[in-house]
Amino acid sequence: MGLSSRGHRAALDRGASSTVSAAKNRVVERVAELGKLGRYEGGIDRPLASPSERAARERFAAWARANGYALTQDAAGNTFARRLGTRSDLEPILVGSHLDTVKTGGAYDGAYGVIGAMCALELLDARGIATAHPVEAVAWAGEEGSRFPLGCLGSSAFAGLVTVDHVRSLHDEDGIDYASALASPDGGALRDVAQRSDSSVAAYLELHVEQGPILEAAGVQLGIVTAIAGQRRLRCTVEGVSGHAGTVPMHMRADALCAASELVIALDVAARAVGDAVATVGWIHVEPNGTNVVPGTVSFSLDIRSPDDAKLDAIEAAFERAMQKARTARNVDVTLEAFERRKPTPMTVFMREAIARGIASLGKPSLDVPSGAGHDAMSLGKIVPTAMIFVPSIGGRSHVAQERTGDADLELGVEALAAAVAEVDAALLAKEA
Amino acid sequence: MGLSSRGHRAALDRGASSTVSAAKNRVVERVAELGKLGRYEGGIDRPLASPSERAARERFAAWARANGYALTQDAAGNTFARRLGTRSDLEPILVGSHLDTVKTGGAYDGAYGVIGAMCALELLDARGIATAHPVEAVAWAGEEGSRFPLGCLGSSAFAGLVTVDHVRSLHDEDGIDYASALASPDGGALRDVAQRSDSSVAAYLELHVEQGPILEAAGVQLGIVTAIAGQRRLRCTVEGVSGHAGTVPMHMRADALCAASELVIALDVAARAVGDAVATVGWIHVEPNGTNVVPGTVSFSLDIRSPDDAKLDAIEAAFERAMQKARTARNVDVTLEAFERRKPTPMTVFMREAIARGIASLGKPSLDVPSGAGHDAMSLGKIVPTAMIFVPSIGGRSHVAQERTGDADLELGVEALAAAVAEVDAALLAKEA
Repeated sequence: MGLSSRGHRAALDRGASSTVSAAKNRVVERVAELGKLGRYEGGIDRPLASPSERAARERFAAWARANGYALTQDAAGNTFARRLGTRSDLEPILVGSHLDTVKTGGAYDGAYGVIGAMCALELLDARGIATAHPVEAVAWAGEEGSRFPLGCLGSSAFAGLVTVDHVRSLHDEDGIDYASALASPDGGALRDVAQRSDSSVAAYLELHVEQGPILEAAGVQLGIVTAIAGQRRLRCTVEGVSGHAGTVPMHMRADALCAASELVIALDVAARAVGDAVATVGWIHVEPNGTNVVPGTVSFSLDIRSPDDAKLDAIEAAFERAMQKARTARNVDVTLEAFERRKPTPMTVFMREAIARGIASLGKPSLDVPSGAGHDAMSLGKIVPTAMIFVPSIGGRSHVAQERTGDADLELGVEALAAAVAEVDAALLAKEA
Repeated sequence: MGLSSRGHRAALDRGASSTVSAAKNRVVERVAELGKLGRYEGGIDRPLASPSERAARERFAAWARANGYALTQDAAGNTFARRLGTRSDLEPILVGSHLDTVKTGGAYDGAYGVIGAMCALELLDARGIATAHPVEAVAWAGEEGSRFPLGCLGSSAFAGLVTVDHVRSLHDEDGIDYASALASPDGGALRDVAQRSDSSVAAYLELHVEQGPILEAAGVQLGIVTAIAGQRRLRCTVEGVSGHAGTVPMHMRADALCAASELVIALDVAARAVGDAVATVGWIHVEPNGTNVVPGTVSFSLDIRSPDDAKLDAIEAAFERAMQKARTARNVDVTLEAFERRKPTPMTVFMREAIARGIASLGKPSLDVPSGAGHDAMSLGKIVPTAMIFVPSIGGRSHVAQERTGDADLELGVEALAAAVAEVDAALLAKEA
């Protein structure tokens, strides 16, 4: 551990002032405040470049201005608030997440990470902790694919995984392109904010709710993400022969739903057997789907995730063996189409270690956990050292109105993030030295 | 075999005239003619008391008038065409089926039986065969539950299984009651047709397409139905816990679709194990049915049929054992709701024997087959001696645009029905003697 790191921790230790306390507590208020934007009876619906998402950005900008952080926005609509470092020659450490939600979203997924980033910077301010690197709180545009058909839209463009022109030309369901949506008065582009084109970054940190039940079940408040799982999204189609439910004898059937049911079970069995992976059939479509008709065609989705690409291969191979068996045993045609085969994104080891030191300095335990969900950290992880901190989700619920994280966990997550920023700053300096 | 029967057969043997040939061939033309009514790209949609179904009745009435058969119609909309018998003191033998179709129906289900009844009477005329009993061709109203929510609507009312007032007060999806639909100009009530209130019947015969693959697979043109299967219609609901497809570990899931898939397989296994039965999950509904969400709730239909009520019990019991297993193994709630538990309707043995003699007189083989589908013969079977003749369905297809029966089979079916009418007439006389 470097000298600089020790200095930061000493500063953290000294910071038990009322200013610090106020800064820490703001996270709960702010999550509640943004949680009103886009709310309806089914949860929160806050699509990218909508009036409610713009209102959330405006709040982000207002907090930044109140703190004296310089605001910038790039052509993909990503919004940055910069707290200066002691050295102007260093690239910034980015800390952020997203403000958009799925259609039935909650108040925590994404928004907590953006608010948490802002609060962590304020905590450093309140404690008088200087970092060598500039640190920027970032609100990435459209992580959820919430209006335009691309997940991690803003962070993908920032990381150069897709071109900015590509994302600006994407169309929503009403045929409006993202460039126009950004420019519209209710859209994403803020007034009086400097245009940013530079994508130079030293490292990336993201604070997020777990969206799963592991931390809660373990009774641990802080998770250090080991990897963002690779994901395979496929569709299987079973073609049998439809027929009258009363007149076709069992031995003459080619029942597509019976075959599909065996495949659903086979996928479940394969994921459990391989371990350290999940596999889900979430969507199924049956034709003709009549109570008195033997199903003729069944399509269903496969969602397979693991931090280990070899396990994804193993599960897919096991599923294909089950397909072959179904063809013979059920006299059906079975085809499999892959829409996406995303490789796992391992988190950077020295960044994970920096987070661990930060959490240890708070005297709190942490748990290494995989992230089954995708995050903007997947984009940044392609270009710079990247790591994530998780806080528990009550009941593991996510993408639903009931999504919630306890106040104490929200506050501790910000503390951990602030400590991690200081540790990462030190670690980067040590590496550069 | 009685004297009267021998006389009929002698008359049949003599009947190789051009008139007979013309009468025989009319069945193919007429099936094609009615097959134009209600046709659209998806098949034939000819709901009860619709303009297309009325047009089919008008054709039936026109054929009856041309033959000099007296038309009557009852308050349930059933339409009768009477060929006189030699004895006015005997109750009629009814021969019929229905003119309505399912929404994606074909030209044969129902219509063939009505046309076949008319053609069989004409064949008796052409051959100069008199029966002692009057014989009536009947077009039963609404066997398919095609507009009003009751299957075998007309025959159920005729047989007194439900009241005529009940069926007349049933409402369609637009809120129109059946009495009003019957009375409307495009509806079911024909003009200048005598009202009928008498339900006295000596016996019932129905000619129908098999709607299944058994006759075709056996290479036999004529089937004698042993029983109309009993049917149980149930709905199973599995309540698990929905969750994020990427973040909920396999061992913490309560995946409603995995549990439902095991139950679908369990039903299939149970029906095969018990034998002489069919069981189908034709309809399934998954919530929320998103590719990236573990299914929280799954409902699905069960359709179980067998000519043996004890086998229905056995399959339902096996399914309930599988439900209990799923509750424990998958950590889900499972409930089962029964909508209908219809007992099997065995066909009357002496009627089956009369049909067999009629077919034998044609020098043709026949096969005893169960009927997995329901028919108006279920209603009549509750009150009078009843039997059915099946002809093959190509590929076993039914309730689809592709439903078809070969011309030679259609013609032979009419021959068999005419012969069966004569044999039943004789058998009834023998029983009365």
